Amino acid sequence: MKILEDRIRRDGVMVSEDILKVDSFLNHQMDVALFAEMGREWARLYAGDRVTKILTIEASGIGMACVAAEQFGCVPVVFAKKSKSRNVTGDMYTAKVESFTHGQVNDIIVSKKYLQPGDRVLIIDDFLANGAALQGLISLVEQAGATLVGAGIAVEKAFQPGGERIRAKGVRVESLAKIKSMGVGSIEFC
Amino acid sequence: MKILEDRIRRDGVMVSEDILKVDSFLNHQMDVALFAEMGREWARLYAGDRVTKILTIEASGIGMACVAAEQFGCVPVVFAKKSKSRNVTGDMYTAKVESFTHGQVNDIIVSKKYLQPGDRVLIIDDFLANGAALQGLISLVEQAGATLVGAGIAVEKAFQPGGERIRAKGVRVESLAKIKSMGVGSIEFC
Repeated sequence: MKILEDRIRRDGVMVSEDILKVDSFLNHQMDVALFAEMGREWARLYAGDRVTKILTIEASGIGMACVAAEQFGCVPVVFAKKSKSRNVTGDMYTAKVESFTHGQVNDIIVSKKYLQPGDRVLIIDDFLANGAALQGLISLVEQAGATLVGAGIAVEKAFQPGGERIRAKGVRVESLAKIKSMGVGSIEFC
Repeated sequence: MKILEDRIRRDGVMVSEDILKVDSFLNHQMDVALFAEMGREWARLYAGDRVTKILTIEASGIGMACVAAEQFGCVPVVFAKKSKSRNVTGDMYTAKVESFTHGQVNDIIVSKKYLQPGDRVLIIDDFLANGAALQGLISLVEQAGATLVGAGIAVEKAFQPGGERIRAKGVRVESLAKIKSMGVGSIEFC
């Protein structure tokens, strides 16, 4: 998606070969006009897939998921919560997610009430790198017996293995900007 | 705001005299059509106040803040992050927020880059009870030297002291549903 790639080139900060900061428009300060454009693109890509629910994960996925949901006829958005210490009761689906940045394992949880077998779920998240968060979200959908329509990702680091692994399982992943390679101050898209 | 009050009556769960669960439409599963209505109401209330930025706090404020921002001409949304252990560097504004639910004190932080003296800031959050989170967000705006236009709150527990205290300081607070009193299974709005 050209406008997202252009925005990353202009306002993203390429800190190293694998660290990209987009906190001026994507995940600390948020450009909701851009989110609406991204939502329109995901809605175009998943037109005809009868999405009934969008699933995301706190915190940085929530804004783009909610604005995108308006482009899917205002389907409900559910966000998985990160939980390290909380007592997970029987009314929650839970999955383990290892953070490669922080090196710790978190549970992510979602109430069973809000993922149902009849749901056709689109997962939306800001980044896909090693795929740990996305794998966890897919597991929540599977536990619910819901139908996974696919995933809409803002930025995929295509030089890390998450996207390839998850597509190899037959999951449709639509990333709006796919980074082929990065260096300090430089970036190349696929 | 009648549609929010009606929705709370219909789908909210009044657990006790001070616990209201709205996780089916406000803060776990989210109704973005309702968020858009709420955004329109805040935009009507703050019309003419030239809001340039919306500030909220993770996680449950983010969705409604982003959808509301579309009704304010797509102004940028910034969310404060909760930080218990992180090293807060000099490029962050920080405030302490005591959680009355969990009894612990968290720092909330926002990058100095995204709150500037020229900003006219509307704070948006889902709940106002004792006012700790809102006080913290107001402090961040003050530290930045930005202009605080006011606060847009979804649900105010008017029987708790936060709203009164903050209004007494001269801050405009517009709550779309103000709860006068609650009991198990019952609720009365102001």
